[in-house]
Amino acid sequence: MNIILLENKEIQNNRATVDGRRAEHIVKVLRSRIGERLTVGIINGKIGYGIIKEIHTRQPVRVHLQVFMERFPEPVPPIDMMLALPRPIVFKRIVSQLTALGVNRVYVVNASKVEKSYWESSVIVEDGWKRFVTEGLEQAVDTRMVDFSFFRGFKPFINRMLPEIRNNYDQMLVAHPDSFKRLPDRFRASGGGVLLAIGPEGGWSDYEMEQMLTNGFEDFTLGPRILRVETAVTAIYSAVSLLQAG
Amino acid sequence: MNIILLENKEIQNNRATVDGRRAEHIVKVLRSRIGERLTVGIINGKIGYGIIKEIHTRQPVRVHLQVFMERFPEPVPPIDMMLALPRPIVFKRIVSQLTALGVNRVYVVNASKVEKSYWESSVIVEDGWKRFVTEGLEQAVDTRMVDFSFFRGFKPFINRMLPEIRNNYDQMLVAHPDSFKRLPDRFRASGGGVLLAIGPEGGWSDYEMEQMLTNGFEDFTLGPRILRVETAVTAIYSAVSLLQAG
Repeated sequence: MNIILLENKEIQNNRATVDGRRAEHIVKVLRSRIGERLTVGIINGKIGYGIIKEIHTRQPVRVHLQVFMERFPEPVPPIDMMLALPRPIVFKRIVSQLTALGVNRVYVVNASKVEKSYWESSVIVEDGWKRFVTEGLEQAVDTRMVDFSFFRGFKPFINRMLPEIRNNYDQMLVAHPDSFKRLPDRFRASGGGVLLAIGPEGGWSDYEMEQMLTNGFEDFTLGPRILRVETAVTAIYSAVSLLQAG
Repeated sequence: MNIILLENKEIQNNRATVDGRRAEHIVKVLRSRIGERLTVGIINGKIGYGIIKEIHTRQPVRVHLQVFMERFPEPVPPIDMMLALPRPIVFKRIVSQLTALGVNRVYVVNASKVEKSYWESSVIVEDGWKRFVTEGLEQAVDTRMVDFSFFRGFKPFINRMLPEIRNNYDQMLVAHPDSFKRLPDRFRASGGGVLLAIGPEGGWSDYEMEQMLTNGFEDFTLGPRILRVETAVTAIYSAVSLLQAG
């Protein structure tokens, strides 16, 4: 936890009281004392610092902070993701990872190789993913909640959602091991927005690839090695953000 | 498991019998039948295919294969890693991840922010890491065991090991959040070998950074966001291999 995130409503007259996970972290992991400064941020708002004014170590642990807000977080690269829903345990890690790396929006879609049961996981139906966004922000020192949206049909996403969003992007890319184009040869969206599609373990079906290619995506390969989805997500994000920076 | 790995001694007259984890995978996950072809490889040797000749489904499950070896795996980018020992559970994932991405050697070293207890983990003292190399090879379809070596002292690594290996590298790079140089500005080893140093959660100490910089490393930053070690490893590997490919 490299930043203590506060909700706007928790701050009154530059004072905030944190409890639960955040207070435990301050007291037990950081072992902070009265008078120390901590990095704090307002969710979807500014980053600044807080000075510890009081610590209540008896349960429930609480910490009173005087807070000073200074600046908005740095912009993230203009990269959005379209991700076939992975196994829930992997999805949790990917949510934190992508949030820490820095994305704006993630479209989580169905695919023929996604097991139907994944859609019933509490990480989706009970909004469990939000906790992992928070963890990613706390890791990377950011405040902006990443917008994850879920599409339980592949075709509705392609036919109804994609036309609404495709003008947001200079280029839409889909990772595919059988592609003949390497990423640097395919990439041309220097500085512009990119939508990056990453399939399930086992890949997109032929039908899904065809639908993406006829709707404006361009395929590329990272090479012949087959990577786990969570490794591929970070590797591809990193490569695209490097190319984008020019 | 995208390749069934065999030890050389398991093959006689182009025949091999696999049992345990590999046989269970063939029977229960792949649900393969007699006559089907599977990708197989010899550890540190060639990749080819195996034709299933017999399946014994009673415990212990065994599968008899007739094997044909064809080609050596593609070379991996000339990237080696110097890694401060992470928490054992994270280290296991990094071993698989780095093996799947494709490295030659990994030097695992101590650092002041590495907890001493990590060195007593079975993943180190009982060579538990080797299983995760195998998993990485099975994922990425490779046969070359990655050479992990362990240095329980930071200074001995810098003073005794580094002089022996530094001529193997065109450039030695250390990731450091306070660096003023972005990776593309620092990088110049197009096509040549790179040794990439990645610190512990919490970073290298000032002393450790100074030791590395005076011994030929050059620092770079991936930007202001603080990443988990396992995310940083993949992100940095991916960026360096992209720059290397030119």
